Amino acid sequence: MQMEVTTNIKKRVYQFGPESTEGGKDMKPLLGGKGANIAEMCLLGIPVPPGFTITTEVCKEYQEGGSEKLRPLLKQEVEAGIAGIEKVMGATFGSDERPCLLSVRSGARDSMPGMMDTVLNIGLNDQSIKGLIAMTGNERFAWDSYRRFIQMYGDVVMKINSLSDDAEDVFERVLSKKKLDNGLHSDQELSVQHLQEIVEEFKQVINHYTKQEFPLSPWEQLWNCMLAVFDSWFTPRAVYYRQLHDIPEEWGTACNVQAMVFGNMGLDSGSGVAFTRNAATGENRFNGEYLINAQGEDVVAGTRTPLQITQYASREWAKLMGIAEEERLKSYPSLEERMPKVYQHLDRHQQRLEDHFKDMQDMEFTIQEGRLWLLQTRTGKRTGASMVKIAMDMMAEKMIDEKTALLRIDPNKLTELLHPVFKPRQVEHSVKLAKGLPASPGAATGQIVLSSHEAEDLSRRGKKVILVRLETSPDDLPGINAAQGILTARGGMTSHAAVVARGMGKCCISGAGALRISYEKQTLIIGEDKFRPGDWISLDGTKGLVYKGKLDTVDPELSGDFGAIMKLANQHAKLEIRTNADTPEAAVLARSMGATGIGLCRTEHMFFGDDRITAMREMILALDETGRQKALDQLLPMQRGDFEKILEAMQGFNVTIRLLDPPLHEFIPTTPGLQKKMATSMGITIKDIAKKVEELKEMNPMLGHRGCRLGNTYPEITRMQVRAVLQAALKLKAKGIDTHPEIMVPLVGDIGEFNMQKRIILDEAKKVFAERNDSIACPIGTMIEVPRAALVADQIAEEAEFFSFGTNDLTQMTYGFSRDDIASFLPTYLKKGIIQHDPFTVLDQQGVGQMIQMAVTKGRSTRPNISMGICGEHGGEPSSVEFCHGVGIDYVSCSPYRVPIAKLAAAQAKIKKEG
Amino acid sequence: MQMEVTTNIKKRVYQFGPESTEGGKDMKPLLGGKGANIAEMCLLGIPVPPGFTITTEVCKEYQEGGSEKLRPLLKQEVEAGIAGIEKVMGATFGSDERPCLLSVRSGARDSMPGMMDTVLNIGLNDQSIKGLIAMTGNERFAWDSYRRFIQMYGDVVMKINSLSDDAEDVFERVLSKKKLDNGLHSDQELSVQHLQEIVEEFKQVINHYTKQEFPLSPWEQLWNCMLAVFDSWFTPRAVYYRQLHDIPEEWGTACNVQAMVFGNMGLDSGSGVAFTRNAATGENRFNGEYLINAQGEDVVAGTRTPLQITQYASREWAKLMGIAEEERLKSYPSLEERMPKVYQHLDRHQQRLEDHFKDMQDMEFTIQEGRLWLLQTRTGKRTGASMVKIAMDMMAEKMIDEKTALLRIDPNKLTELLHPVFKPRQVEHSVKLAKGLPASPGAATGQIVLSSHEAEDLSRRGKKVILVRLETSPDDLPGINAAQGILTARGGMTSHAAVVARGMGKCCISGAGALRISYEKQTLIIGEDKFRPGDWISLDGTKGLVYKGKLDTVDPELSGDFGAIMKLANQHAKLEIRTNADTPEAAVLARSMGATGIGLCRTEHMFFGDDRITAMREMILALDETGRQKALDQLLPMQRGDFEKILEAMQGFNVTIRLLDPPLHEFIPTTPGLQKKMATSMGITIKDIAKKVEELKEMNPMLGHRGCRLGNTYPEITRMQVRAVLQAALKLKAKGIDTHPEIMVPLVGDIGEFNMQKRIILDEAKKVFAERNDSIACPIGTMIEVPRAALVADQIAEEAEFFSFGTNDLTQMTYGFSRDDIASFLPTYLKKGIIQHDPFTVLDQQGVGQMIQMAVTKGRSTRPNISMGICGEHGGEPSSVEFCHGVGIDYVSCSPYRVPIAKLAAAQAKIKKEG
Repeated sequence: MQMEVTTNIKKRVYQFGPESTEGGKDMKPLLGGKGANIAEMCLLGIPVPPGFTITTEVCKEYQEGGSEKLRPLLKQEVEAGIAGIEKVMGATFGSDERPCLLSVRSGARDSMPGMMDTVLNIGLNDQSIKGLIAMTGNERFAWDSYRRFIQMYGDVVMKINSLSDDAEDVFERVLSKKKLDNGLHSDQELSVQHLQEIVEEFKQVINHYTKQEFPLSPWEQLWNCMLAVFDSWFTPRAVYYRQLHDIPEEWGTACNVQAMVFGNMGLDSGSGVAFTRNAATGENRFNGEYLINAQGEDVVAGTRTPLQITQYASREWAKLMGIAEEERLKSYPSLEERMPKVYQHLDRHQQRLEDHFKDMQDMEFTIQEGRLWLLQTRTGKRTGASMVKIAMDMMAEKMIDEKTALLRIDPNKLTELLHPVFKPRQVEHSVKLAKGLPASPGAATGQIVLSSHEAEDLSRRGKKVILVRLETSPDDLPGINAAQGILTARGGMTSHAAVVARGMGKCCISGAGALRISYEKQTLIIGEDKFRPGDWISLDGTKGLVYKGKLDTVDPELSGDFGAIMKLANQHAKLEIRTNADTPEAAVLARSMGATGIGLCRTEHMFFGDDRITAMREMILALDETGRQKALDQLLPMQRGDFEKILEAMQGFNVTIRLLDPPLHEFIPTTPGLQKKMATSMGITIKDIAKKVEELKEMNPMLGHRGCRLGNTYPEITRMQVRAVLQAALKLKAKGIDTHPEIMVPLVGDIGEFNMQKRIILDEAKKVFAERNDSIACPIGTMIEVPRAALVADQIAEEAEFFSFGTNDLTQMTYGFSRDDIASFLPTYLKKGIIQHDPFTVLDQQGVGQMIQMAVTKGRSTRPNISMGICGEHGGEPSSVEFCHGVGIDYVSCSPYRVPIAKLAAAQAKIKKEG
Repeated sequence: MQMEVTTNIKKRVYQFGPESTEGGKDMKPLLGGKGANIAEMCLLGIPVPPGFTITTEVCKEYQEGGSEKLRPLLKQEVEAGIAGIEKVMGATFGSDERPCLLSVRSGARDSMPGMMDTVLNIGLNDQSIKGLIAMTGNERFAWDSYRRFIQMYGDVVMKINSLSDDAEDVFERVLSKKKLDNGLHSDQELSVQHLQEIVEEFKQVINHYTKQEFPLSPWEQLWNCMLAVFDSWFTPRAVYYRQLHDIPEEWGTACNVQAMVFGNMGLDSGSGVAFTRNAATGENRFNGEYLINAQGEDVVAGTRTPLQITQYASREWAKLMGIAEEERLKSYPSLEERMPKVYQHLDRHQQRLEDHFKDMQDMEFTIQEGRLWLLQTRTGKRTGASMVKIAMDMMAEKMIDEKTALLRIDPNKLTELLHPVFKPRQVEHSVKLAKGLPASPGAATGQIVLSSHEAEDLSRRGKKVILVRLETSPDDLPGINAAQGILTARGGMTSHAAVVARGMGKCCISGAGALRISYEKQTLIIGEDKFRPGDWISLDGTKGLVYKGKLDTVDPELSGDFGAIMKLANQHAKLEIRTNADTPEAAVLARSMGATGIGLCRTEHMFFGDDRITAMREMILALDETGRQKALDQLLPMQRGDFEKILEAMQGFNVTIRLLDPPLHEFIPTTPGLQKKMATSMGITIKDIAKKVEELKEMNPMLGHRGCRLGNTYPEITRMQVRAVLQAALKLKAKGIDTHPEIMVPLVGDIGEFNMQKRIILDEAKKVFAERNDSIACPIGTMIEVPRAALVADQIAEEAEFFSFGTNDLTQMTYGFSRDDIASFLPTYLKKGIIQHDPFTVLDQQGVGQMIQMAVTKGRSTRPNISMGICGEHGGEPSSVEFCHGVGIDYVSCSPYRVPIAKLAAAQAKIKKEG
């Protein structure tokens, strides 16, 4: 069969260029993504350096027959391709006067980031380098190009580094040694002679490892590079990537051979980057930067200051810099002024490209001896504001439709629009001190405090403070509340500080490992810098960056475009978006963000308040049920009051209230001082307290006495909470307020656990209803967060009226990863590519997702109309939201500020699924 | 359809008794298990109190039509049944002269333990009690019977307790109050007058709650009891039980009405229990005890000393008690001598029953006025020794075949035969101090020591010691080794102490919560008893019991019968039985127990030895890779030596070696003294040590930096262990010794984790093989113990050559139960019936089992011949072994002493599955 296919191949090489192009964008299976796109640009009349694509079929042919069989089959077509290139470029492959240099790149049907093999400057050798020097007049550039070529060739074609036992790149070692020997610090400082020496040494390295000479024949170089591209399709790295992404091996890769162009061939040459619209603001105005007599890398390197492409932008820039028009025109002319013809071409091409691709384009171009070449065009990166404006503008311009506009928004980037940010200019000039986890977005600036107490004190005196702690505990709650932002040295994205701060919509950076905090000495040391309380720092919680000093923040403007996008999203989304909120304030905030209900109201967070933590502690430390009941009686009116306010704030919508979940020791006083205070207030000995605290200690609290295990061993806790919920709802009902409470049992793993809780809840409800002579509907459901619950979801759904997937715990137990302890290995895992994402950030669809899918299917098998939601941290993560839509979940619940993100992701998920 | 069935019923009542019996053992669907068996006994000619069974069909009929419709349909047949009973018994239902009393019992097709509703003494009222007094001459007995009847009737028929809000039984409250008011301590002390008062008060209680009078009409009593039995089939408790056990509702329950008989009607009456063979020794000799003029409960109550049934046993007993033959015959005659006719009947019946049921029977009988009635026969409970002997004897007698003999053995009871036990008489007279978990079986006696150090000291001086600790750590290893047994206050069946002790075959009790240990005061307090080091205690590790003082142990005799049973098991088992062994000694022991390979060799236990813990600690505390490598270089020869011995001990069989698994902090020195010592030996500061120790602390170490996460972040550890294994194997190979090492990667959850370890292992193997210029086969496999691994087992099996299910961790993560922390809720869960078994003892087939089944199926889908085993604690638990056989696992691995148990369970599993 395969032989048949092989012998049927009529055409193996497809040329492209200004003169003739044989491919097009619909030929991706044959030409690969890159080859098809280049051809498409050519068809649009965009001047692209000429070249040709060897088809993916040849990849298969090569695998079957090897290089001996392949070369004769390809020879004629490749030679014709080269001839075509030479003709357009007016240069000759291998010439030592005017050499035509080539690049070779792989290109599969789908983009495989990081899998792409590339070799540049093919055709350089000890002879042709003379031609390159003559053409560019830049000897250093030519020698640097040569050494780069040998290095890439050695790496990609000769696989030197896989032959070496050394962990370090063998070529980089030569470079390092050269710099060290000559007292140099950067590659830029290497002289022509150094580079010449390096070229020789590189050749020796190749000889040493391969026992072969570096090939000086341009044709041999070319053939080897092409075969290496095909080989790269079969490397273990590529095989692994394909397995992960379900890409069939038989697709193969194409191979693109293309002319190199040079922007450093004199004053009629140059390079630049351009954008069809403004990437920062979204304004519909062509813009970009360029440099005369320079290669592309010079434009981005920052050693020379690039100039503006358009006259308009050039003038704006000069105004800002205080440069007179005459001086500007002389020293900083725009491309529009300097090379008007070239500019006109460029402007025409950019319009053509945006019209064609229907999105803002980011282009690289090179002008070689007055001739414009576009090297690349791609969808341009942009800020959140720009992203929203461009999408809505293009929709208004009828360039794209509603669905496309929605798909154009990166949900995660909306964050930028929802929180205060630092003034960009100030950030550029500030000292970055440390990086931590972006635990809760926004920007905050304030004076350092190292204790919650001090935070409250200074805040009361009108100061802005940043609370800096090793990690936070419930004791720190008043301090977190008082501070502008929170910075911790330990803890992950779901640490106490992170969860509380997100709930409050407050900026927080957690797990900033570089911090050295001494409470005793009252110092904060970061690297060489030593801070004391009162010193100013600033936090960018969106990026996890800590800055030195005081930075000004600007509040976000929720522009009309943003509102319009959200309205669109609302129309398209099927998934309902609820919020995780534990306070009336958070509920109000979430409503304003568009949440339609509370998917997770954590009752334990209510116990952290100053007035109630004491009663909570008395409950926990009580030596018997009587003592426990006494404390619970104190807590009842407080909880009832909380629920009343939350239910009222969410009137008309569901409020899912989770019964007490965390291990009790999270609440207990840890310091002897606090323990003594508790003992006094409870009238028991400090020894009793200490004993109880000791008893509550657990080896693995995450898998210990928590969740419904608490309510099943101390039913009086469940009863108090149920009573508080129902009394609050009945009170509101009497006032004519429409409430929809739901009671959620946490950490169920066995139907027996749920049934016992349900019995207690129903029994208490019966009592409350009888007492008030009134009743209210209140569904009883459960979290699905223990793997076993997913496995027996059919049984559980017979009794539970709703499921809410607690993806945090489900991820912990499915992976066996304690999120508090992953810092010791997860960074290594991500770095080595052992796993692809932090599963606490991006839902692990293969494992945890499989559990969810199983629970959805099993749950619906016994209760077809069961309501299902997600209330873990993943509820606001777009790819996870898409997954939820895909498996047929009814709602996701996330922190208030992530509601718009989730809403948009939900709309996108629906649009994508419907195709 | 249902109506049709109803009207088709021709016969609703089946009579049984000495005169005529209409049912038989094959009619269980219609008559229920109990009804069919009673009928069968009648058919065998066994005199059973007469009665009748109302069929299960009537249960359905009742559900559909209710009592109004049912009574007329049943009336005639029931009245005929009662007449039959009256005729046989020579008594009249409801008579106040010679009343015939009845019992009513439910009886479903399958036994539903605890679901059975029973009412006794029906027919008693204020009149008929006079007849009962006259018949028995025992006024107190009659009134006590009456109050019991009202109590049962009130509970079963009138459901008083479900009408009351009170947690306490309302009848028991009346009883308690009566005793309290009269200063009495037990029910036995209640006088006739008290009982008469109670009868009146019980009637009032019923009236209070039901607003109805207690019915004095015997017929009304009877009808209500029969209907209550049918009602009981539909109670929530029964519905729940049926759900759990997959019993269809439509089976229904039958209802058995039977005459009561009385052994207390004078000197020609009596009661007794009898066994067809000796329950203690298995000797094939009829035996039992009886009492004249007594009810069955008097025989077991212990207030009067029962006499022997046979002359032989009576004489043996007299010899033992030093009673002369004359005195014996006068005061302690056997039934054989006292009532030779009755005895002959009984003897004939017992032979008939054993012949029929083909197993040792345990029978209850009553002699009423010289007439023998057998009330019940059932398979007799027996000791382990008796169990084995009876099975082998019956096989020799051709009563049962091989397979039946194997199925007769309760594998768990074999434990009794494998370990030392206390002398039974001594145990009876000893003070039981506390109960803990039976962590490692056997019996041990010794002097209390509270530290490992002291244990070593005293043991060196020839003393027997019991090491008593709150919990043990690796530091205690020398002490555990030195002690006779280990007793800990904390920890579960898989705590450090438990695992280590089982590995050593040493008696251990863990989690004895009643212990109060003070290391400071050097005291051990249990209840009122205070002990100090040097005091004697004794441990029964098989039962988890702690005794005061010194008890003598007897070593087990592995009799010929035991060997024969094991040989049979070997012939029938399909599952291979391997062992968990970490030392050469354990390997040898396991081989002698019949293990064919090591399924789990935990390498970390080797690091606990005195000589190597220091090097291990140096490795962990090393500040960088160099330091780590230095320590690993020290460990290499030690590990190699261990592996050499173990591989040699297991020559010819597989040895699965697991790479380092536990969190590193398990090894680190916890006391400042030890930390200082380490600092000195490593030449670093104690501050560095303390810092590192702090860094290693984890919130949830079970889900933290352990298993392959260690080997993937510190590849040098994996390399050292692989090197040690392969060097050991190659050395043995050179000596001509046949070894089969396998390397097992722990805690894999993602294929990426396994692949990284595999790459490291293969790379190191390549180096070792090259160095030695030799190689050996060494499959690389993985534990399946993280839920995610089961979910992606198809991916993992593509790379892993074997799976070993780590059911301990798999249970922990699937249930979300930390086995170290379950003590705070699991006892409550088991007590309340929230879950049925401790899932760490009995494999949770629904949840964890589903995971295993999934992994087996998925794993075999990509590697059909993959070898699969179980190496958790469940490997030696019979129901779990049966499960493993069922899902097609290849082997189970368990501690050496459990190998015979597992082997037998494996044979049984195969026999059961084949039917």
